[in-house]
Amino acid sequence: MRFPTLDRFRLYRKIAGVKSCQDSNIAIDEKPARGQPPLGRHFHTPKPGAGRLLFFVVLMNGIINFPGLIDLHVHLRDPGATHKEDFGSGTRAALAGGFTTVLAMPNTQPPLTDEPSLELAKSAAREKAHCDYGIYLGAGPDNRATAAPLAGRVCGLKLYLDQTYGPLRLENLGLLHAHVSNWPSNRPLAAHAEGRSLAAILFFAALLDRSVHICHVSRREEILLIRAAKEKGIRVTCEVAPHHLFLTDADAPRIGPGRSEVRPRLASANDQDALWKNLDVIDCFATDHAPHTLEEKDGPQPPPGYPGLETALALLLSAVSDGRLTHEELIDRMHTNPKRIFALPEQDETRIEVDLNEEWEVCAANLQSRCDWSPFEGMRLKGRVRRVVLRGQRVYADGQVLAAPGFGRDITER
Amino acid sequence: MRFPTLDRFRLYRKIAGVKSCQDSNIAIDEKPARGQPPLGRHFHTPKPGAGRLLFFVVLMNGIINFPGLIDLHVHLRDPGATHKEDFGSGTRAALAGGFTTVLAMPNTQPPLTDEPSLELAKSAAREKAHCDYGIYLGAGPDNRATAAPLAGRVCGLKLYLDQTYGPLRLENLGLLHAHVSNWPSNRPLAAHAEGRSLAAILFFAALLDRSVHICHVSRREEILLIRAAKEKGIRVTCEVAPHHLFLTDADAPRIGPGRSEVRPRLASANDQDALWKNLDVIDCFATDHAPHTLEEKDGPQPPPGYPGLETALALLLSAVSDGRLTHEELIDRMHTNPKRIFALPEQDETRIEVDLNEEWEVCAANLQSRCDWSPFEGMRLKGRVRRVVLRGQRVYADGQVLAAPGFGRDITER
Repeated sequence: MRFPTLDRFRLYRKIAGVKSCQDSNIAIDEKPARGQPPLGRHFHTPKPGAGRLLFFVVLMNGIINFPGLIDLHVHLRDPGATHKEDFGSGTRAALAGGFTTVLAMPNTQPPLTDEPSLELAKSAAREKAHCDYGIYLGAGPDNRATAAPLAGRVCGLKLYLDQTYGPLRLENLGLLHAHVSNWPSNRPLAAHAEGRSLAAILFFAALLDRSVHICHVSRREEILLIRAAKEKGIRVTCEVAPHHLFLTDADAPRIGPGRSEVRPRLASANDQDALWKNLDVIDCFATDHAPHTLEEKDGPQPPPGYPGLETALALLLSAVSDGRLTHEELIDRMHTNPKRIFALPEQDETRIEVDLNEEWEVCAANLQSRCDWSPFEGMRLKGRVRRVVLRGQRVYADGQVLAAPGFGRDITER
Repeated sequence: MRFPTLDRFRLYRKIAGVKSCQDSNIAIDEKPARGQPPLGRHFHTPKPGAGRLLFFVVLMNGIINFPGLIDLHVHLRDPGATHKEDFGSGTRAALAGGFTTVLAMPNTQPPLTDEPSLELAKSAAREKAHCDYGIYLGAGPDNRATAAPLAGRVCGLKLYLDQTYGPLRLENLGLLHAHVSNWPSNRPLAAHAEGRSLAAILFFAALLDRSVHICHVSRREEILLIRAAKEKGIRVTCEVAPHHLFLTDADAPRIGPGRSEVRPRLASANDQDALWKNLDVIDCFATDHAPHTLEEKDGPQPPPGYPGLETALALLLSAVSDGRLTHEELIDRMHTNPKRIFALPEQDETRIEVDLNEEWEVCAANLQSRCDWSPFEGMRLKGRVRRVVLRGQRVYADGQVLAAPGFGRDITER
């Protein structure tokens, strides 16, 4: 399989008999030329004047090309807990999962709330990252006035309105109000906000007429409230994690009491059903990759979180197989929308090659993530990333990360 | 001192040399006629065509007439805890405090969430009330669909978003959304909503384009958020309790560990200062009269709440003396605004006579409330209700309740 040049793209387009091909969007060939295989299905054509092929999808022998996936929500534990993960192992896991960009959360040790702590993470990432990345700044009790000047160095500001791993929870209403007010209105604001905290952060978005991105929505009433808010014209986007789409609280006993701990918690089948039924409200799929070691998860105070980078795409492709999702919907939520919402730059000559037919069993010991376990352990999945090309360079192929540490770029540093 | 007839009002008006006298608002005489005492200060004139005097204020020898005060927020413990208070003792305390109308909260035993429980309260009130009243319905887990049909029988729906006395707390976001959606948009909705719960209920008001009344606002960030919401055009009104205006957490040791328990808690001097500085945002003063016996307050699990009906007016008059409040601002917040916000009917020929010069010491044993204690015990106050006329009948005079039990009417039953 060769990746197409623009000329080759034009040839394929001719072969596939594509009827409509817009300049800056997806053209779908539903009617291949008579006697031709459905060789081309989706084309992303060059933006006017851009002179380059954004991505190209070909179905042949079960091989499909996608643009580089973007994970808006990963915990790489660097600095401070690199025994769980670091920018090296975490971005290797990203590439193995088809992600060419990851946005790293700030609840590290120390939390990333100021220039020195941010520099710790940036330094680690510069040295170790195999794929591109951005880093969030955390909203804390002491940086309400000093966060905004750092907006150009990070992918967004993360607000923790509810309890999770780490010390960054915003308890105080005035502090929350100040952070939302002070953060530049054209820079992303992401919130962990469950239950009434969701209504609260939506109020601040409405009050201050700014956008807000809601992390890992997991419950029926939350997705319905986001739907209502969108219909009202509130500028809200949201992400859902694969584990909330594919696991419920009924899976917790099988996973185990400590290992099943995650925030937001695994929800009911009713909640899960609501997520699938409101797929149009879900802008993004994001893994909330949150590795902890097995020793920690099986210990007396199990920290919440699952690894997810290396299982997300295959899980979602299973939903495509089941007819619950289309490839277009998947790419919208794992590439197009994340890129738009976080104003991420284009990655030129970047794509992933996925074998839709490859069946594999989740065996955490064989995964790139350092944490060595998965809530999906033993699950048989279909569809696996074969190769990844990032900025023209082959960075992953058949289980091997080929990019050197430090190849990844900070794509949100301005 | 006689209460003026319309003719006498015209006479007083002439004597006082009032320059402007609008038909449906307050006319303030800042320049009494030369050589005349400032006899008339505020006039409420008859509404066009109404043919009756709404209220009339005369300052002479320290005696002032106010309209009947309205307390939007009282707990009369009836049914279920009448050893603390009941509709009899509670409305006697109301009259002694200058209130001719009280709106009773639904966190009784049983809580008032349906027709049978509501009938228990209504029956007790019909039999015992000495002043007029309305009764709130409580929003609970089981009445999201059955509350609205009772809207014509109650003064409003009360939403408990935060922990307080009783079982009516709404934890679930979907339940809250349903209650706010289902309650008629032209009927009052009152919310106990602190911190981010305040932002959440304001979001529902914005989302559903309806009004909401916020109970007992106590903190700086809350009053500032309500200010911002009002400026944004959100239909929010709010009340503040006298104990949050006159006590802070520094008073708790003096009051005692159990007795000082109240929800919202006594706040900081900084919070108290913000309430006074944002007086223009405060629509109403409401006592949150929440009697518990001394045995309970001094026991191992002290329930939260203070009695407040009989000390509210004198406390607020002290603020008038101190120049922090005017009589107009007081009447706006204890009569005019509560009446408007809760769409309460006019009480004809109703007024209270207050001696601004009478000094007295709070001695709970001498108060009408059954609970027999006060957080203001021993405090010297100036200004006391002398007489109360309700619907043309003298119902209170010099410490004696003259109205019979059952004289009070349910003014929100439609």
